[in-house]
Amino acid sequence: MRFDLIAFDADDTLWHNETLYSLTQEKFQALLSSYGFGPEQVDQELYTTEMGNLPFFGYGIKSYILSMIETVVRLTGGRVTASEIQQIVDFAKEMVQAEVELLENVQDTVAKLADKSPLMLITKGDLLDQERKLDRSGLLDSFQYIEIVSEKDSARYAALLARHRVEPERFLMVGNSLRSDILPVVAIGGQAVYIPYHLTWAHENEVDPDQHGKGYYELEHIGQLPELLEKLEREA
Amino acid sequence: MRFDLIAFDADDTLWHNETLYSLTQEKFQALLSSYGFGPEQVDQELYTTEMGNLPFFGYGIKSYILSMIETVVRLTGGRVTASEIQQIVDFAKEMVQAEVELLENVQDTVAKLADKSPLMLITKGDLLDQERKLDRSGLLDSFQYIEIVSEKDSARYAALLARHRVEPERFLMVGNSLRSDILPVVAIGGQAVYIPYHLTWAHENEVDPDQHGKGYYELEHIGQLPELLEKLEREA
Repeated sequence: MRFDLIAFDADDTLWHNETLYSLTQEKFQALLSSYGFGPEQVDQELYTTEMGNLPFFGYGIKSYILSMIETVVRLTGGRVTASEIQQIVDFAKEMVQAEVELLENVQDTVAKLADKSPLMLITKGDLLDQERKLDRSGLLDSFQYIEIVSEKDSARYAALLARHRVEPERFLMVGNSLRSDILPVVAIGGQAVYIPYHLTWAHENEVDPDQHGKGYYELEHIGQLPELLEKLEREA
Repeated sequence: MRFDLIAFDADDTLWHNETLYSLTQEKFQALLSSYGFGPEQVDQELYTTEMGNLPFFGYGIKSYILSMIETVVRLTGGRVTASEIQQIVDFAKEMVQAEVELLENVQDTVAKLADKSPLMLITKGDLLDQERKLDRSGLLDSFQYIEIVSEKDSARYAALLARHRVEPERFLMVGNSLRSDILPVVAIGGQAVYIPYHLTWAHENEVDPDQHGKGYYELEHIGQLPELLEKLEREA
């Protein structure tokens, strides 16, 4: 094989995730519309709060909800009611219980590749929530290694490859975020396949445009991955 | 060596943690005392909320704070003010920024043992927060393996030992929680050293008393661990 290890991002690479945030954010917009705030302003204020809280709370649903609570307190000047606060906490419970819906072609592609190569799942976010989604996904048995990390940067990828004794050039990462899945892997000499998702959280789009366009492959959907791998195999 | 792997719990085994929750809970009691609630009732109601939320939110500071918010909304019948809600969110930011204070004898003992055996840290809770505490602790270099898990039960310990190819009888776990560190390890044939901390979260005390008193060692403080290990070594 051309690669010793093929790794996949999870959220919006294997299963839908951003749609869940998007639906929840619509409910949050609706709640704040009764205080006279438009959806764009709500989104912008929430994003500002999230970025400020990232160093404290990290990624995931609980952080998202704590940021919503802060935002609603700030925007309403304290007029938000306790029952509205409870509604927002309940958003979190709905989110963690949501069904896991695989993206198209994921099941077949992952099963096919698992027969040929060790597969790893690398995801950031909340430990319990990511484990639960993996359980519900039905994909657990296809992955030999599961890595849930607090951040996806070059240093983490390098440490992870060192721990698993994989050379960067023998490592392939597949994901939907240039910022988290693609550029940090390319930066340490790894290979990467970028498969954009139709929705992307603004934070994942915060990348230097100069770094785009080289050093990685881009596919429209994960079903095209086996063919790309066969092509790379022939060229190797 | 008698053991192939020695593992330590982190919170209240290596560094103070429950004291931080305790101090925060006093602030929460103070906030609710102005609504006429006594500290015992506040503690009890919060604990009930926490147990109800555990399956949704898991362990850690963010879960704790979300449970506080739910509790204050419920207890005040919605009279809690938005600025009080913000105060509670700010508790979370203070907690994640708190200094890490090692327990007595930890630094020397861990350094001494790290020279003789591979050490692992096994902790449950929030990924980012636990990583951050480990960074601040100054102990990072002493641990060859770090495992942050969403739950500590026999199945997790068994999976972890299988993954690291360690036989249970060659594994020693050191911790302050019978429920999380000691009994599940003893149950799979591992060895365990119980070092009680002066404060224990009620949830960690929820154990079947019939299971007590056998199959593990108990020490007063971690400084006694090297001597116990030498004794076990001589007997082996």
